[in-house]
Amino acid sequence: MILTVTPNPAIDVTYAVDGLAPGASLRVDAPAVRAGGKGVNVARVLTQVGTDALAVVTAGGETGRELAAELATSGLAHRVVPVAGATRRSVALVDRAAGDTTILNERGTELAAAELDALRAAVVELLGAEGPGRVSCLVVSGSLPPGAPAGLDAGLVTAAHDAGVPAVVDAVGPPLLAACAVGVDLVKPNREELVATTGTADPVAGARALLEAGARRVVVTLGPDGMIVVDADRPGDVLRARLPRALRGNPTGAGDAAVAAAAVSLADRTPGQPDLAALLRRAVAWSAAAVLAPLAGELDPAYRALERDVVLTRS
Amino acid sequence: MILTVTPNPAIDVTYAVDGLAPGASLRVDAPAVRAGGKGVNVARVLTQVGTDALAVVTAGGETGRELAAELATSGLAHRVVPVAGATRRSVALVDRAAGDTTILNERGTELAAAELDALRAAVVELLGAEGPGRVSCLVVSGSLPPGAPAGLDAGLVTAAHDAGVPAVVDAVGPPLLAACAVGVDLVKPNREELVATTGTADPVAGARALLEAGARRVVVTLGPDGMIVVDADRPGDVLRARLPRALRGNPTGAGDAAVAAAAVSLADRTPGQPDLAALLRRAVAWSAAAVLAPLAGELDPAYRALERDVVLTRS
Repeated sequence: MILTVTPNPAIDVTYAVDGLAPGASLRVDAPAVRAGGKGVNVARVLTQVGTDALAVVTAGGETGRELAAELATSGLAHRVVPVAGATRRSVALVDRAAGDTTILNERGTELAAAELDALRAAVVELLGAEGPGRVSCLVVSGSLPPGAPAGLDAGLVTAAHDAGVPAVVDAVGPPLLAACAVGVDLVKPNREELVATTGTADPVAGARALLEAGARRVVVTLGPDGMIVVDADRPGDVLRARLPRALRGNPTGAGDAAVAAAAVSLADRTPGQPDLAALLRRAVAWSAAAVLAPLAGELDPAYRALERDVVLTRS
Repeated sequence: MILTVTPNPAIDVTYAVDGLAPGASLRVDAPAVRAGGKGVNVARVLTQVGTDALAVVTAGGETGRELAAELATSGLAHRVVPVAGATRRSVALVDRAAGDTTILNERGTELAAAELDALRAAVVELLGAEGPGRVSCLVVSGSLPPGAPAGLDAGLVTAAHDAGVPAVVDAVGPPLLAACAVGVDLVKPNREELVATTGTADPVAGARALLEAGARRVVVTLGPDGMIVVDADRPGDVLRARLPRALRGNPTGAGDAAVAAAAVSLADRTPGQPDLAALLRRAVAWSAAAVLAPLAGELDPAYRALERDVVLTRS
């Protein structure tokens, strides 16, 4: 089972509007309301492709109730760590006329020290499971709540390693660097996150900077330009993958689909190194299938067929 | 006690943004979350000025829980009629840079016939109270839920009249005309609502059309141009009131403050006709004080002083 942790989940509230004119008053239909946050999206993708996944989230306030209720309705296996502060909202205004989406991302509310401890304890407990609930990979995804220590993700990676479980972190800045420092098995920045974290505009140089910081593998997602992966064991090699054509759709959640694909590869206990070519091929295909699907956390059924179209190159 | 009914209340979610660029992704602080809807705002104003008020609202879903919780926190006397559909949201994006506000008003969810009956029954029960809970005026404010009969407000007016209680309706279109047809004591359209209801651009002609439709009194709010009132007993007379200068601020809730002022005048059981000059003077002052206050349902403490500045003219 793949365990995903979302330290700062959100309730995603999505409105369809026809023309968003600043200063105007619009009548709108009831929004789509969905449990969100990157780790939740990763667990949704895994569940869709038939891989057991469990999403750990914090939840508080009425918005937290809404989050938990929606997870239950979705049939997504989950564990809620109750907190006092209200779960944040992420409000998306999908403008059907202009073809763009405006997003208001709340920062979230601070967690008390005891709440951070409870989150860690829940993850450690789940990492200790044996039998069918045994965790094969840990994924820690998304922003931290305001005021949380930058080492939160790294601490969870160490807990996973203590339990013999590989770990993927999808983060940016100090939390990403801290996860690298404890030898995280894979990180997946996009181009902007890589620049923000390493100060390096070149994806290969930035990825190697994260290897030097201690990461075992770095996948960099480059939007329509595909992805690259580098590995600490062969830092000179760069594997690139992309689809022969760009796809139109909703890029929200494309990175989460890539993380889900990487986690499936790392969870495979076949002795030896993970097959990076297979990992990258799947990550590109699932990411593209996420672009084709309307909602974050969903893959278009073409995800299997797309894998065959992925073009791999080495340099 | 003044009873306000809000058949289609909302949870008001207000975000502060610095520049709302369509298509952008913004990090925002947690929003202000407040129980909203016109009748709720009227009850808030009345409570602030020391007049007993009770707000009747429907509430459903997690947003309905949020609504009820916020009413309780506000210390506003209220009665919740539970319904199955989720209470709608009204999302306001207050752009501090541009100085304007973009509003997304959800339409709301349909009420079942039994839920409409429960709302009517709750109002009828409250209208029957004796002693300190005796109702001195009924206010029915705001939009109807989708699919609700246009005669909902009118039915509540008739129930009030059956109990010997005067009634104010703040509505637009067929529900407003239906309330006029049963002899509602006062209606308060603004210029746009009057045009939408009567097809007449001239406020005096539009107001007289509502008298002809059966309303006893019509107050038309004209923004910075003040207000007019006409009365079915002297349809040829028009009383106008305005402040000598325009005020800057937040006009949301200004109409609700005017309704609150009108309800206070109608609730006064002094024999004879209500003093329309006093009513209009107070309505203009409270409305202006609402513009000066940051949130709908609040008056700036200047509301008493502003009454002295109101200029009345007859024509």
